[in-house]
Amino acid sequence: MPSDLVVTRATIVTADARDSVIPEGAVAVTGGRITAIGPAAEIGRDAARVIEAPGMILMPGLINTHCHAADSLFRGLVEDLPLEPWLQTVWKAERAILDRATCRLGARLGLAELLLGGVTTVMDMFWHPQETVGAAKDLGMRVSTGGIFFDFPGMDGHIAERRVADAEAFFSEFAGDPMVLCGTFPHGAYTVGPENLAAARAVTDRHGGLFCTHAAETRAEVADIETRYGRRVIRHLEHLGLLDERTVLAHCVWLDDEEIEILARRRVTVAHNPMSNLKLASGFARIADMLAAGVRVTVGTDGAISGNDLDMWMALRMAATLPKAATLRADAVTTAQALRMVTRAGAEALGAGDRLGSLEPGKQADMILLSTDRAHAAPIFDPMTHVVYSAAKSDVRHVFVAGEQVVRDGELVRLDLGALLAEVRALAPRIAASIA
Amino acid sequence: MPSDLVVTRATIVTADARDSVIPEGAVAVTGGRITAIGPAAEIGRDAARVIEAPGMILMPGLINTHCHAADSLFRGLVEDLPLEPWLQTVWKAERAILDRATCRLGARLGLAELLLGGVTTVMDMFWHPQETVGAAKDLGMRVSTGGIFFDFPGMDGHIAERRVADAEAFFSEFAGDPMVLCGTFPHGAYTVGPENLAAARAVTDRHGGLFCTHAAETRAEVADIETRYGRRVIRHLEHLGLLDERTVLAHCVWLDDEEIEILARRRVTVAHNPMSNLKLASGFARIADMLAAGVRVTVGTDGAISGNDLDMWMALRMAATLPKAATLRADAVTTAQALRMVTRAGAEALGAGDRLGSLEPGKQADMILLSTDRAHAAPIFDPMTHVVYSAAKSDVRHVFVAGEQVVRDGELVRLDLGALLAEVRALAPRIAASIA
Repeated sequence: MPSDLVVTRATIVTADARDSVIPEGAVAVTGGRITAIGPAAEIGRDAARVIEAPGMILMPGLINTHCHAADSLFRGLVEDLPLEPWLQTVWKAERAILDRATCRLGARLGLAELLLGGVTTVMDMFWHPQETVGAAKDLGMRVSTGGIFFDFPGMDGHIAERRVADAEAFFSEFAGDPMVLCGTFPHGAYTVGPENLAAARAVTDRHGGLFCTHAAETRAEVADIETRYGRRVIRHLEHLGLLDERTVLAHCVWLDDEEIEILARRRVTVAHNPMSNLKLASGFARIADMLAAGVRVTVGTDGAISGNDLDMWMALRMAATLPKAATLRADAVTTAQALRMVTRAGAEALGAGDRLGSLEPGKQADMILLSTDRAHAAPIFDPMTHVVYSAAKSDVRHVFVAGEQVVRDGELVRLDLGALLAEVRALAPRIAASIA
Repeated sequence: MPSDLVVTRATIVTADARDSVIPEGAVAVTGGRITAIGPAAEIGRDAARVIEAPGMILMPGLINTHCHAADSLFRGLVEDLPLEPWLQTVWKAERAILDRATCRLGARLGLAELLLGGVTTVMDMFWHPQETVGAAKDLGMRVSTGGIFFDFPGMDGHIAERRVADAEAFFSEFAGDPMVLCGTFPHGAYTVGPENLAAARAVTDRHGGLFCTHAAETRAEVADIETRYGRRVIRHLEHLGLLDERTVLAHCVWLDDEEIEILARRRVTVAHNPMSNLKLASGFARIADMLAAGVRVTVGTDGAISGNDLDMWMALRMAATLPKAATLRADAVTTAQALRMVTRAGAEALGAGDRLGSLEPGKQADMILLSTDRAHAAPIFDPMTHVVYSAAKSDVRHVFVAGEQVVRDGELVRLDLGALLAEVRALAPRIAASIA
């Protein structure tokens, strides 16, 4: 029986557990899944569509485990401030601007940037998460999100008391949707008290969902939590029973040795956001120590307000290199470890290691084709090295999610980017005025 | 009299001393120089060529103050090693591969990447520097280079005794060429003894040229120089009388407070290479302290063997953000300071502050046009913030050097990139074999 799609003659970086690279490879896709992968000579070309990709690199779509896509609306609005005062100003703008429509618009903007850059799955925390899902569906992208928890009235105008109902409603709407990986998203231990953290956990536990929060991002946060609860952030979260293999903690910059050991033992995922940690002066996360301790480390872009873009390739490069300088060890993170952070480990973090994160038979055909007709792409001695240390977002030519092409020749298939940008620019004066 | 060229209706980031931004601006060029710049309404359109650039950003070409362009041939060949053993392996490959022809090929590859990424002037240290100049002329780019000094036989096969003659020959050939900023380039204090450092200095002093060397890149280098000469690197160079406003020191990662003060007092330029310092595990340069002390800091990509690309935008982003995390101060480097590092300060470092580094009347028309029809380019609240924190190499659409267009719509005007890449790829098996 013919396949739906065969991509052939590409160099395939599978990102599988053996880090297999197939120099002249092909992949066959049917019903959104990979049915066969191997040397081009061994994969039949009997398919509804055959893409000849000589000289290109085929690899799994990148998985971004921490983002606030819709915050792209506020990109570059507030600069050169540390996290806490910066957040106060950002929140002022968010309060003034955000409603369901602007959340949808912002999510489209952020997710469009990610998808064009080869990110096929993103874990996103934002107000009105249904709008984030809507935007992802508008684009044809996978998203992990869900109800936010926040002790104060949120930027969506909702009060703390309705967060459980909101989160439940999200699960009701999207549980079982293969394009949505549901969870609950309490903002952080410094903005959500133990009771509401427990409530968020209870909702996601009822549905077998994910649990994601900001944790130990700044020194000030650690001091705050210690003052309030007598424990550092990770120990506080452990004490509350919130840490397990479905937990994704964003940032984790300020950890002591025991906290790293806790994260490893509890099989928690750390979503490392190198660019945001640099720009907001949060510090250098102890990635090498986490890897050595066996912590699952993944990579996020964070939002474009702390970036100021959503470039997973830059985040990958930073994740691969910052720990080398921080430890003065050039092998602090290897090429294979870095690649894993943005592929397989990301999938495992989202509880989807069986269907995402690598190109293997039976997995979803979430995959990207990279051009190598670039000055930075010659010579290539090792395709994995190229992907980690040389490739750029602008190399991404074609993107497939569940076998469907959603980026073609560097352009969105489903959405008109120009019209989207025009809509964002029309809103910009009102955004600027919101903090004036 | 009509101008040669008018670019109009662009947002102009001038990078001048007042950080002027002209929202709807125009620039007129005649004889390779800027004759007028200002609001589009005030600049006449009487020109041989008028480029309408609404929605684009016009700014000076970036100045990269440290590179080894031809080393792009060895991109990704040696990975995950610290500088010293890494350098031994790289040198083995260089010895086996480099001759005048391969230096020209490598320089074309590296400089093509830079020029396509909006770098109009680069300070480059490499074997057979005449070939680097040749490659720059093939592309239409400005370059600062000159004779290398090295105590051991070099990768060009030349022995130390002929370095003075080589360096003199370089000055003879290129002194006075407006496209070439000549100097001498002793490799480093750990590979060039006091006598040859002095000889290199004497040559460049005779011609009023520049003086560039690697300095204080790693802890091991500092220990080595201290053991040999009883002084840390910067004090050693000062003791030898090598430090003044025509000196460019690459890296300067390991400095004590007194050395920073020396660099400021002697008006030395530090060429900061953030990506290389990360990848080779050299460490974090004390950029915030240098800026506070009044040291002129510029930015380099270093070579693609330690990068693994020549992306000045990534280098700029790192230069702007790494010091924030290193100091835990979000204003450790401001947007304006970061932009200056890759424009005006770079020009001043090369003794060309009067003719390069900003868009002002009388200066050379080295300028680039950036697209903003990108998901990462909306909204733009401040064009300078956009340039420093969001812009990417793939935004560079048009590049002009001395008024001549050398990149058009993202493609080299003078050289066929595809043919160049094919030539590099044909050489790759021999390069791989050289260290096998």
